[in-house]
Amino acid sequence: MNPKIEKLIKQFAKLPRVGNRAARRIVLGLLQDKTGRIGKLVDALTDANENICPCPVCGVLTDRVREKCEYCSDTARANGMLCLVRDLSDVWVLEKSGVFNGRYHVLGGLLSGVAGITPDDLNLGNLATRISDEKITEIIFALPNTVEGKTTQQYIISMLNNANVNYSELASGVPLGGDLDYIDDGTLSLAFGGRRAL
Amino acid sequence: MNPKIEKLIKQFAKLPRVGNRAARRIVLGLLQDKTGRIGKLVDALTDANENICPCPVCGVLTDRVREKCEYCSDTARANGMLCLVRDLSDVWVLEKSGVFNGRYHVLGGLLSGVAGITPDDLNLGNLATRISDEKITEIIFALPNTVEGKTTQQYIISMLNNANVNYSELASGVPLGGDLDYIDDGTLSLAFGGRRAL
Repeated sequence: MNPKIEKLIKQFAKLPRVGNRAARRIVLGLLQDKTGRIGKLVDALTDANENICPCPVCGVLTDRVREKCEYCSDTARANGMLCLVRDLSDVWVLEKSGVFNGRYHVLGGLLSGVAGITPDDLNLGNLATRISDEKITEIIFALPNTVEGKTTQQYIISMLNNANVNYSELASGVPLGGDLDYIDDGTLSLAFGGRRAL
Repeated sequence: MNPKIEKLIKQFAKLPRVGNRAARRIVLGLLQDKTGRIGKLVDALTDANENICPCPVCGVLTDRVREKCEYCSDTARANGMLCLVRDLSDVWVLEKSGVFNGRYHVLGGLLSGVAGITPDDLNLGNLATRISDEKITEIIFALPNTVEGKTTQQYIISMLNNANVNYSELASGVPLGGDLDYIDDGTLSLAFGGRRAL
């Protein structure tokens, strides 16, 4: 195989969710395309690489020219609610659903003994300052419902020990349209424990 | 979502086998990567875009600086055998298996009434010249075992009407390790028709 093509395939195969076979298909598709798709991809990559950086306040990736991201600079969002998420993709999911219109704080990971992720690896440095500066009254943990998620949540609550805020987490239970036959025991037990009176 | 990031996701979502969700993961992975992966990807893409073009003889994608591709310029491959394939990826598969050491000819597609692909869309212009120039004695059709593959094969044989060559096609039958229980009726019928005496 041509070394230039091989190198390109290797770069694509390193991307998340792209294997060797898919990388070959992608590269072949790009090289045989006659609409200049490679050029457009290169332009978009270069633009993002040069002009995107994390918001210094919340960690959401944003334009370097802006001081703050679109969420932190939107005064309509200063409603005292702060939603803690693991990742920027969680912000995208929440924004798409439209269920939340306060501010975000992206942790950039979850505490994990196995993966060796400690509090220093998370975006926690300015969290206490944000709570007082932005007059936060409620912190909503929208973290994965896993051991790592719960551990991180507990750590942050104990870290913010003296902060005068309410804490909440997303409800656990049977998903909409969820058939009990396909729900795991842990979720069922949480759904029973959190049952609502009618 | 940031418009620069959105634009990049759209470019990735256009690639074959990459959907919207995978594109979001890929872009997030790239933007959060600290090892300069975007730069490497941009370099590899630019290099390939500027320096890769189809071999004027066989259609295999190759370096622009070379007159012919690695297969056409390899005199050890001038053994009178010419393998017709649909796509460059088929060349890669055959090269990996090591079953063939002659020359290739990449058609760039298959005749299809549904997709509107006519003989003019295929790389057939220089096929007759190649046969005489390279003293080809056998043409091997390594095309997909489909209606389009067989139609294309028949078209090429009738097109090369006066050429003094032998034609062959890959054998049809039960794949190695194939369980009869999982083989479709068409393949079974071909395997029976082509049974070998022991």
